[in-house]
Amino acid sequence: MAASIDPERFGRIALSVVAEPGDLTLGALLRRSGPAEVFAAVCDGRPPGDAGDVPGAARAIGRWAARLGAVPADSQLAGWERQGMRMLCPGDPEWPTQLDVLGDARPLVLWVRGSADLRFACLRSVSLVGARAATAYGTHVATEMAAALAERGFCVISGGAYGIDACAHRGALSADGITVAVLASGVSYGYPRGHNELFAAIAGQGAVVSEWPPDRPPTRPGFLIRNRVIAALSCGTVVVEAALRSGALSTARHARDLGRPLMAVPGPVTSAQSEGCHEIIREWNAVCVTRAQDIIENVSPAGEGLTDRRRGPAYPRDGLDGPATAVLEAVPASAGAGPAAIAIAAGVDLDTAIRCLGTLAAAGFVERCPRGWRMRKRP
Amino acid sequence: MAASIDPERFGRIALSVVAEPGDLTLGALLRRSGPAEVFAAVCDGRPPGDAGDVPGAARAIGRWAARLGAVPADSQLAGWERQGMRMLCPGDPEWPTQLDVLGDARPLVLWVRGSADLRFACLRSVSLVGARAATAYGTHVATEMAAALAERGFCVISGGAYGIDACAHRGALSADGITVAVLASGVSYGYPRGHNELFAAIAGQGAVVSEWPPDRPPTRPGFLIRNRVIAALSCGTVVVEAALRSGALSTARHARDLGRPLMAVPGPVTSAQSEGCHEIIREWNAVCVTRAQDIIENVSPAGEGLTDRRRGPAYPRDGLDGPATAVLEAVPASAGAGPAAIAIAAGVDLDTAIRCLGTLAAAGFVERCPRGWRMRKRP
Repeated sequence: MAASIDPERFGRIALSVVAEPGDLTLGALLRRSGPAEVFAAVCDGRPPGDAGDVPGAARAIGRWAARLGAVPADSQLAGWERQGMRMLCPGDPEWPTQLDVLGDARPLVLWVRGSADLRFACLRSVSLVGARAATAYGTHVATEMAAALAERGFCVISGGAYGIDACAHRGALSADGITVAVLASGVSYGYPRGHNELFAAIAGQGAVVSEWPPDRPPTRPGFLIRNRVIAALSCGTVVVEAALRSGALSTARHARDLGRPLMAVPGPVTSAQSEGCHEIIREWNAVCVTRAQDIIENVSPAGEGLTDRRRGPAYPRDGLDGPATAVLEAVPASAGAGPAAIAIAAGVDLDTAIRCLGTLAAAGFVERCPRGWRMRKRP
Repeated sequence: MAASIDPERFGRIALSVVAEPGDLTLGALLRRSGPAEVFAAVCDGRPPGDAGDVPGAARAIGRWAARLGAVPADSQLAGWERQGMRMLCPGDPEWPTQLDVLGDARPLVLWVRGSADLRFACLRSVSLVGARAATAYGTHVATEMAAALAERGFCVISGGAYGIDACAHRGALSADGITVAVLASGVSYGYPRGHNELFAAIAGQGAVVSEWPPDRPPTRPGFLIRNRVIAALSCGTVVVEAALRSGALSTARHARDLGRPLMAVPGPVTSAQSEGCHEIIREWNAVCVTRAQDIIENVSPAGEGLTDRRRGPAYPRDGLDGPATAVLEAVPASAGAGPAAIAIAAGVDLDTAIRCLGTLAAAGFVERCPRGWRMRKRP
């Protein structure tokens, strides 16, 4: 068993292999004990000492212990790293903290392959999801909307599947935007296999992400489990086409339950692939969106003026308004400076500087330091 | 000038000819004086004595006085009647009292040509409106929805125009349903002229209605003025297809402002003729409806069980639930009976009988009489 990496980190990897992602029992245990301690308990075959009040803990531990053989060896982890895959844990600078909204169902780890910084990419992002059996109409709309979102600096998140998902990724790529595929298989397994070239293109310009170990094939329930991550990663979810029982509606349900903006694209009432969209517009109050601008208005904080039509490459800071951009420019890279000095450098008043620093910190751009504020380091 | 008919009635006809429908100054004057008195004031060329607080009354009277030559002679009125047109005034048994919601903008009179009882037909009705330049998609959906509504006992109300309106009327006719065309021209002028055969078919099975004198051609503002009547007559308004500046959206705005259920049919986001529908779904909270059943659920009082799939000819009483139907059957035709006797005859308890009698009275089926309740006479 691996020993060269941090034991808490290794504990997370090992637990992510023996348990299924989103396991609420494991989430409850990890609220009480660290990953290394919980994993040690699995190896011992009995719950950690403070797990008495977690229902089903003993049974779950037994289930996970039966899969200990699948825990990757040190050499395997090193091999994945050599193949360009990196592992993120909560607390890592690249960890997307918006996933914390998932509570006990938060992913244990994320495997990432790709050039984009996952946290920064997802700060300004939209999930575009929909049917695999997309119509020509849905295909057209998904591609156009994704391209328009990318042109306006939004990262497009989807599930890498055939149909609408693929169009969402391709539309963003066509506009030189950032796109993130959240897979239900491991990132090197890359399901569906027919999308291997697409996944390579996504990794080149964005990121391919999974909670499962890189070589894991998908399972049927895995797709539904994965959908909560698509909803939680983004600032809002758009269903482009979905039949009444489409898996895309599970992503929509997660977005709704997490309180994230939920949108749907209408279509002909004569098309079964639009029935799910109309259903959630009517029953879940999903916002009826017909173009990228509608989507941007829905995921932007009120009054932040994100509805400009500027085009160009996509940077996370494209979403900032004038004063916030000026303040960000004025924050020292590492030495740090106090709010008053930053206000003078930015040419704004002190109140504005303090307000903007708070916003920038929440968005992950800056952090407190002994001398005041400095840029947050990107990994 | 005519003298053989009731002077109040004649006053209304004359005022409806010299003023434009929906004139709020005239509505305010008629809250203070009867039609005969207001018309006499117009003939005198000065406001009635109690019009002091109605702004613009003197100027309006002058404007109307200039058109006194258009007031129809007795022989003209008799001629219209011979041609099968009847005139309704507020208070007439066939007057649709739901128009009272329009307040000062309520029509002065309605000219009707057709076999249906206007009041009864509209008790259970839906307005289907939309673009003249309808697409094949809108044409198909409007026809199918109208037929399905008619099959379920709903009267379909529309404006008699080309495009969606015509499909709504034809769909209802095809299912042997009742349909009402509310025109912006007089009913014998029949605009658009190309629909003369359609109007004859509508009159045969439903009614052609107008606020304007029978021989009056339409004016451009008349269409917008007419739209308030379409919205107020029906239990709910559905926009099937509408571009962003379509006149159908004026009907939708009236429905919304009157607090009537407002619905819209979604369509492809690539179609300009669906943009207005998507706009009112998003901005006005119009309900996204995709089939007749959705519409029926929206216009039916909660829990009245109108969602049955029964088919057959359309009667107003098709909308009643079980107990109400039983109570209606038990109400004597003209002699009248007390609630207790009716409850026994209907096989329901006294509370239910009293509740149902109230509903039936509100819907125009029954009325109070010295001995209790009796059937309301249909003209």
